[in-house]
Amino acid sequence: MKMGIVTGIPGVGKTTVLSTVAEILQEKKIPFKVMNFGDYMLRTAVEKKYVNNRDEIRKLPLEKQRELQQEAARQIVKDAESLGENGLSFIDTHAVIRTASGYLPGLPKHIIEILSPLVIFLIESDPNEILKRQQKDSSRQRADYSNADVINEVMNFARYAAMASAVLVGASVKIVNNVEGDPKVAANEIIRTLM
Amino acid sequence: MKMGIVTGIPGVGKTTVLSTVAEILQEKKIPFKVMNFGDYMLRTAVEKKYVNNRDEIRKLPLEKQRELQQEAARQIVKDAESLGENGLSFIDTHAVIRTASGYLPGLPKHIIEILSPLVIFLIESDPNEILKRQQKDSSRQRADYSNADVINEVMNFARYAAMASAVLVGASVKIVNNVEGDPKVAANEIIRTLM
Amino acid sequence: MKMGIVTGIPGVGKTTVLSTVAEILQEKKIPFKVMNFGDYMLRTAVEKKYVNNRDEIRKLPLEKQRELQQEAARQIVKDAESLGENGLSFIDTHAVIRTASGYLPGLPKHIIEILSPLVIFLIESDPNEILKRQQKDSSRQRADYSNADVINEVMNFARYAAMASAVLVGASVKIVNNVEGDPKVAANEIIRTLM
Repeated sequence: MKMGIVTGIPGVGKTTVLSTVAEILQEKKIPFKVMNFGDYMLRTAVEKKYVNNRDEIRKLPLEKQRELQQEAARQIVKDAESLGENGLSFIDTHAVIRTASGYLPGLPKHIIEILSPLVIFLIESDPNEILKRQQKDSSRQRADYSNADVINEVMNFARYAAMASAVLVGASVKIVNNVEGDPKVAANEIIRTLM
Repeated sequence: MKMGIVTGIPGVGKTTVLSTVAEILQEKKIPFKVMNFGDYMLRTAVEKKYVNNRDEIRKLPLEKQRELQQEAARQIVKDAESLGENGLSFIDTHAVIRTASGYLPGLPKHIIEILSPLVIFLIESDPNEILKRQQKDSSRQRADYSNADVINEVMNFARYAAMASAVLVGASVKIVNNVEGDPKVAANEIIRTLM
Repeated sequence: MKMGIVTGIPGVGKTTVLSTVAEILQEKKIPFKVMNFGDYMLRTAVEKKYVNNRDEIRKLPLEKQRELQQEAARQIVKDAESLGENGLSFIDTHAVIRTASGYLPGLPKHIIEILSPLVIFLIESDPNEILKRQQKDSSRQRADYSNADVINEVMNFARYAAMASAVLVGASVKIVNNVEGDPKVAANEIIRTLM
């Protein structure tokens, strides 16, 4: 099994790219899984009766959040391994999260060492395209970027964080440009890199 | 107790910002401590009879310096915990130090893992303001910046180093802009972030 | 013994700088070793009968590659220590390697913790000089840089990776500019920094 962690800041088109990855691999009959880290955390938290919904997770004490993260990572590895030797698994998560407390690493040591992926993908786009997409898409809760400079800063911190996480496990960091209007380009590049 | 590590390159106004943090918290009667990492190292070194003054510390063998750093970090955690659950502690130190041997990380693995802060603050200012302050302030020993490009490089390496340290313990990295002439803005942002 | 890791992206002139370091130290009768990480890996791999030549190494399973890296690192430390207290050792390797799978860290945790150097050097040059050198030098297999933007990105990722590796062991990261036509400048700066 080969694991890639797919990251990208809100508005970059990560969800669409990962759906396209899934479509392509289904068509090619290659065994794969796309696993959302947040969903795994939520499921674990509900099973353990820590929370009833997603919003309650970030109100948990930090030790409990860390416990959930590690449990989620272990479950992801288990599910990924069930794919067998030729399977591809893609973990949908963040390299950094922009919070009121600053840039929070999405792949800190206690998580990345459990996942131990081959590749950390950074999906990137032109900052102005990200701004435009954000204005169109008012249906989802989005990180609010006031301008292209802020987006550049977030993308830069994602690069620093991804590289720091990669150094811990010897993974590579692959930048994938998501071209506006054609998620297949990024999707195919992600698949090609991991196979 | 909540711990924040407050870093900033020489000339950025860190000392003034931290004094302002102290004034605000005293007024609000919130239990807090501002602890200078270098002072803790020096006190430990003198107690252990390794040195008589600050300058002698960097002449010690590397293993001794590392021992002092770790001992200082443990003492800081002890003092921070004495504040009780609602206390705020602020560690005054550096994310990187510009030395003749290059950029030395101020929060290497063996220290950050002991401190395990919630937030690493990076106080930043406009490079030209930093240059100006440096020219006015000849009373203190300062890192000598020849121009704004050098200052930009130092601030960038501080970002890379802070993020690498943060990834080790799951802390967040918060950039705080110190506006010339108004340290209260930065001080209040630091307090708000940690509370 | 003092150890420096000397890194630089292909085309930056690292080989020439390290030959110049060797010439200067030979003249000054200072005990030293310049050790190429890849050569140590190859020798270990051949001894263990894993491979017959360099190209076969990257086709080995990842665990075997990691085993070889760690064995090479241990052998390098052993050879470095044989120089005695005043010896200088220089490890010729990369901070990141630009591969089809992305930016691969050359000094991941499992290697840097064994080497535990004092300094990680980043030899840098003007991107346009690197492009020119690459066009002249068709005799060696080179990373193909299409333009100066790509070179800038590689040099930036080398900085992030070097700092992340440095944070793990408390090493410093020293940028050394290789001036076109005069490798002695960079060579002397490397020697001066380590002594």
